[in-house]
Amino acid sequence: MSKPSFVLHGDIAYSKPDRSLTSQKDGYLVVVNGLIKGVYPSLPKEYAGLPLHDHAGRLIVPGLSDLHVHAPQYGFRGNGMDLKLLEWLNTYTFPEEAKYQDLSYADKAYQIFADDLRKTFTTRACIFATLHKKATLALAKKLSSTGLIAYLGLVEMDRNSPDYLRFPSAEKALEDTETYLKEIKDIPNIYPILTPRFTPSCTDELMEGLGEMKKKYHLPVQSHLDENPSEVAWVKELAPWSSSYADAYDKFGMLEDSIMAHCVYLNEEEKALLLSRGTYVAHCPDSNINLTSGIAPIKEYLEKGMHVGLGSDVAGGTHLNLFYQASLAIQMSKARVLYLGDKAPLNAEEAFYLATLGGGSFFGKVGSFLEGYEADILVLDDLKAYPSIKDLSILDRVERFLYFGEESALKEKIVAGNPIGLK
Amino acid sequence: MSKPSFVLHGDIAYSKPDRSLTSQKDGYLVVVNGLIKGVYPSLPKEYAGLPLHDHAGRLIVPGLSDLHVHAPQYGFRGNGMDLKLLEWLNTYTFPEEAKYQDLSYADKAYQIFADDLRKTFTTRACIFATLHKKATLALAKKLSSTGLIAYLGLVEMDRNSPDYLRFPSAEKALEDTETYLKEIKDIPNIYPILTPRFTPSCTDELMEGLGEMKKKYHLPVQSHLDENPSEVAWVKELAPWSSSYADAYDKFGMLEDSIMAHCVYLNEEEKALLLSRGTYVAHCPDSNINLTSGIAPIKEYLEKGMHVGLGSDVAGGTHLNLFYQASLAIQMSKARVLYLGDKAPLNAEEAFYLATLGGGSFFGKVGSFLEGYEADILVLDDLKAYPSIKDLSILDRVERFLYFGEESALKEKIVAGNPIGLK
Repeated sequence: MSKPSFVLHGDIAYSKPDRSLTSQKDGYLVVVNGLIKGVYPSLPKEYAGLPLHDHAGRLIVPGLSDLHVHAPQYGFRGNGMDLKLLEWLNTYTFPEEAKYQDLSYADKAYQIFADDLRKTFTTRACIFATLHKKATLALAKKLSSTGLIAYLGLVEMDRNSPDYLRFPSAEKALEDTETYLKEIKDIPNIYPILTPRFTPSCTDELMEGLGEMKKKYHLPVQSHLDENPSEVAWVKELAPWSSSYADAYDKFGMLEDSIMAHCVYLNEEEKALLLSRGTYVAHCPDSNINLTSGIAPIKEYLEKGMHVGLGSDVAGGTHLNLFYQASLAIQMSKARVLYLGDKAPLNAEEAFYLATLGGGSFFGKVGSFLEGYEADILVLDDLKAYPSIKDLSILDRVERFLYFGEESALKEKIVAGNPIGLK
Repeated sequence: MSKPSFVLHGDIAYSKPDRSLTSQKDGYLVVVNGLIKGVYPSLPKEYAGLPLHDHAGRLIVPGLSDLHVHAPQYGFRGNGMDLKLLEWLNTYTFPEEAKYQDLSYADKAYQIFADDLRKTFTTRACIFATLHKKATLALAKKLSSTGLIAYLGLVEMDRNSPDYLRFPSAEKALEDTETYLKEIKDIPNIYPILTPRFTPSCTDELMEGLGEMKKKYHLPVQSHLDENPSEVAWVKELAPWSSSYADAYDKFGMLEDSIMAHCVYLNEEEKALLLSRGTYVAHCPDSNINLTSGIAPIKEYLEKGMHVGLGSDVAGGTHLNLFYQASLAIQMSKARVLYLGDKAPLNAEEAFYLATLGGGSFFGKVGSFLEGYEADILVLDDLKAYPSIKDLSILDRVERFLYFGEESALKEKIVAGNPIGLK
């Protein structure tokens, strides 16, 4: 089946792999068979026959990728923010996640999440569900209906979690995961991802089983790493055989084709390890400050050549809006300059890169408008939503949209060439 | 002329002077002659004849006060955020403010500002204009048309500013200020406030003249204090006769009935001085992190009994939304816990207090629903805008609204008993 081909006209901006922002005022973005052909100052003759969507004066940018979000936590975002990580998990998170045992509860709650995610700037997401297989498959169907593309994980936990929210054994966890992997195959655009919650909640036996499954089925992985000093200390106790928290994942082969959320406290050995494995860091600035976890040195990670994208980490974070997360990443990097001696903060171009290509590349050729990239596109009516009496450069417009762009300014959203309904 | 009397029914929340949050589910807020009479669990018979606005299920809270905002900077908010204070002033702020010499430019730009401010959660504001008398009076008229209540200041600067943006002499500045004071009298709801930009931009002669004017006309004052270490060092050079930056204002009587924006770097002497003078601190967390200035110890100021409210400080800040500013105040206070040894961050109740009564009290009895307070009221359709499948307490609803409440959820806004148009 052939995919859509079309042309968008407007003010186009996108990041290149070197993180620089490129723009074309009054340009033409050509999509052929769902893939970007190129950005042109005037429309090449050969594409004159394609349907043209005229968005003159509007900003056209790549779709954003959310590398870390917990769907079942969406209902209590913005609550309990006066607590720290482990306290917050026990008071809010675990009791709430347990409710997803009840399919009718899950159905209602996940419907709100899927509807809201559809209307955001996010075109791709890596999502944690809960350990409940049926509810997670129900979420997969709802996500599939939105038209977004996502990795969705059944959350593995068989220790150090309340009785009401853990698999009775590693065996049962692996068995449910196998079933989950089979059943999700029939759901378009939603792909499975192995999801050990984090080392403290997974026995070595479970991790070993997941490691084997990963190899067998060539699956990606998502988890949490080095979020908070108490958690890091805890892992040291739980995995005395590992040389570091990251190593505790690596021993089971969990750092390749993998996203690790947070990475606030990576030591030098861990940075080198993640770099060599090509692991993605999901930077979650909102969550990390809300839970008083810390601020990850993202500028340093980028300069080292590590892969970094953004995660809303709802409900540690309170906003699905990844432009908000991008501006908060800049703000938090300034707190590092003030208090941790960093030489420079993240700038607007880098933050935009993180939200687009930085995270998008986990999904393949996603998050840029270079030739061959999948056509994930946002059309923003920024000058109408936020009028300006002076001429703003495209970079100025992108920068201010990072700081205060809202979903009401989103006019079109396209995922892999297909338009998404925004009502 | 009698002012409006009416009753609002809904889920009511407000702060008391001890900063605690009080709420009444399904309550009745009675307003008589523009003043709050009280909040009741059921409607007292004596008010049964008043018009009743039924907002069942909606949140009803006091209006918010913005203690520090620069109207002429609104047009470039969200731009130049990769710069620090003094560099940003010279690159963005001063050249832009100079344009307000041109009345037709001012007219267009201020219209956008006034329209947008009207639609925010702000019911009262303390506003910096520029040094241009005509443009500032034009802004006063536009603000007056919104129905909001504001202090508006002609910005005093007669040194250390570009030639194109400073009064040629202290004498001329004082003369224009006298004229401004006379002409603004005829503009309803907009009140003058003396506005020395900051010590570096005002000669001692100008400050002395302003000090006399303050006594003569019983005027309030607004300015900037201890925002940034370079600025503090500069003031030490400029006012060698002062024992501190705050003292450099105090010598001219500028700390009483006064708002000082930022106060990031107050020393112990200055804290004691501001406390004894009853000076208001306008906490501007957004601006202070954007310009890498620092983070003010607001929890400590509150515990010392100092007056503190919030300032959006557009365009150092990028959002007029004071709920956003309140949640950022919490987040920034957590960075202080992480890196400066603070024992505890601000909590949601304190942040709500800062946005309402903390700043509102600068305007008199404003920012609470205790008897005798002026009826500044917001009606928020929070559960419709942000559906929840579980019952949230009113405190939960207030907390999450701080984190992600948007103006689209604002259904009614009332200032001193009068409804404000929100279209």
